[in-house]
Amino acid sequence: MSDALKPGARIGILGGGQLGRMLSVAASRLGFVTHIFEPGANPPAAQVADRLTTAPYDDADALRAFADSVDVITYEFENIPTEALDLLEAHRPIRPGREALRVSQDRLTEKNFLQSLGLNTAPFADVTDLASLNTAIEEIGTPAILKTRRFGYDGKGQARLRAPEDAEAALADMACAPAILEGFVEFSHEVSIIAARGLDGQVACFDPGENVHRDGILHTTTVPARLRPEQRTDAVLLAANILNALDYVGVMGVELFVTPSGLIVNEIAPRVHNSGHWTQNGCAVDQFEQHIRAVVGWPLGDGQRHSDVVMENLIGDDMDRVPDLAQEREVALHLYGKAEVKPGRKMGHFNRIAR
Amino acid sequence: MSDALKPGARIGILGGGQLGRMLSVAASRLGFVTHIFEPGANPPAAQVADRLTTAPYDDADALRAFADSVDVITYEFENIPTEALDLLEAHRPIRPGREALRVSQDRLTEKNFLQSLGLNTAPFADVTDLASLNTAIEEIGTPAILKTRRFGYDGKGQARLRAPEDAEAALADMACAPAILEGFVEFSHEVSIIAARGLDGQVACFDPGENVHRDGILHTTTVPARLRPEQRTDAVLLAANILNALDYVGVMGVELFVTPSGLIVNEIAPRVHNSGHWTQNGCAVDQFEQHIRAVVGWPLGDGQRHSDVVMENLIGDDMDRVPDLAQEREVALHLYGKAEVKPGRKMGHFNRIAR
Repeated sequence: MSDALKPGARIGILGGGQLGRMLSVAASRLGFVTHIFEPGANPPAAQVADRLTTAPYDDADALRAFADSVDVITYEFENIPTEALDLLEAHRPIRPGREALRVSQDRLTEKNFLQSLGLNTAPFADVTDLASLNTAIEEIGTPAILKTRRFGYDGKGQARLRAPEDAEAALADMACAPAILEGFVEFSHEVSIIAARGLDGQVACFDPGENVHRDGILHTTTVPARLRPEQRTDAVLLAANILNALDYVGVMGVELFVTPSGLIVNEIAPRVHNSGHWTQNGCAVDQFEQHIRAVVGWPLGDGQRHSDVVMENLIGDDMDRVPDLAQEREVALHLYGKAEVKPGRKMGHFNRIAR
Repeated sequence: MSDALKPGARIGILGGGQLGRMLSVAASRLGFVTHIFEPGANPPAAQVADRLTTAPYDDADALRAFADSVDVITYEFENIPTEALDLLEAHRPIRPGREALRVSQDRLTEKNFLQSLGLNTAPFADVTDLASLNTAIEEIGTPAILKTRRFGYDGKGQARLRAPEDAEAALADMACAPAILEGFVEFSHEVSIIAARGLDGQVACFDPGENVHRDGILHTTTVPARLRPEQRTDAVLLAANILNALDYVGVMGVELFVTPSGLIVNEIAPRVHNSGHWTQNGCAVDQFEQHIRAVVGWPLGDGQRHSDVVMENLIGDDMDRVPDLAQEREVALHLYGKAEVKPGRKMGHFNRIAR
């Protein structure tokens, strides 16, 4: 722990949503003090952070003052503008590092990176215009999904092509942004593995969770996932492969499709991940503390799971269920302190524990 | 839950130490927003709270503004000046209520209250001067302990009498403050029970923990405690008896001596308690969330324990152990964010989990 920050050190977090909020709480458990940088008003993370800077990502003075006020910088989302990162990095270390952001900010770069490691992905092709989309359709077939290369999340920035005739409409949906066409994969279910790598290169993985989505948004994660022992081993090895290749520091979420012929990497997220929220009530060290441990140079927790857990997201009006959920044994609530309930908005989650 | 506060409501916490800090984090998990009132500079709780008021307890304007900014008021310590409570209570509900504070702020009142419920306490007598101390010694014998009636904690405000000749020196130690003389009790060990009562009168108890002190400060709490089944039942019943008699709302710590002839109540604390910190890693709903649930009118968690835990305090230089503790499996660290390490100062604790 020679490079380790000591309790009392300051951690800067880019992004003030629920992930930043839970990172801030985890940091406080280890005695660290947090500073949130967030352009939007009333960020949930600020309610449990020591300091808040409200400024856009192109405010160089605010970025500089933020960086100077902390000892290390991390983030809750991957779409941070490159210029902001350049400026911040000149002042303080950013963990996970730039390479992870470069790769994961662009679906095309990410898929090429994963294939370069010998990992399986869905078939894909670069799409820049109608001509390249039609070529891609010939190559990959339909049904397929057109996805913007950048700034997609929770099913946003995606259009489904049922048949080649859908090409033009799908491209219009994307507002002609650079995209990839992705072929459908026949999979039985989706799992994700939350993996961490320390400053010293140590890797620790949480048990894979099985994900169910609704309307393009994660609905539940169940641990243990349905995986054969060799699939579980594969998941851990491929996650370690990705982390090592990126010289990664922090927690990463890796989404995987389970198919008869093996695991296929759907996507990676260089941050704590919604499908890792179960760790809050299933492990001694959860994904948020694990991430903080990594970015401050502490030893990682071992990721051991002590309980079976089903995590369920509370989206929009699901908040009406809170009074009933509060009465249930073995239900641990985690609400995000968001002022306004909106359809599709992640308002909280709960972990139902089975021992 | 008709009287229940909804997520987004504001909870005022009097006191910005580690208990206020952990209450604030627990409140955030349920979507509540916290406001800390603390006279001292840089309170640990403010690092994870939405708002902080720095003002003394005789600043009527600050108290009024604080009360008006929140929906309910609770506290992390019992020695809040009566005038401050009068002022606050005129604006917002204070939970636990005034009766609990009145009783627990004064050792003499507390012992008389406990005896009025038919509970066993150590023998005690009122001491106001040397004459009454000598009478008390005749009645109770030596060895005995002289304790100030008010403002004692962690062994402070106490003097031991080995023999009647120690009377004058002990009284001088107390600076002649009103006191009680307490006889020694032959006990095999100390346990404490962390009990909670909801706004609707529902009572829930955590499993009793067994406490070991060093230099008058709690050192470890171990669950399960060594108790026979009927002693465990007695502990729960007497805690419920106390809570109901006070029409209590919130979490209370009840310290008990285990003797061959039964349980003896040592003292009660109308707040979350150091000996309940193990619940953070032993229960789905810990003592901090339990307290918040009570004061906002939510249903209580059931207090069920899923793991055996040993909680150990980190006092002063014990902070040097943190790097080693961070490497241990099944150790969950909880550090308090205090800037300065001082001898005897509670800097953090850890829970070692045995499954």
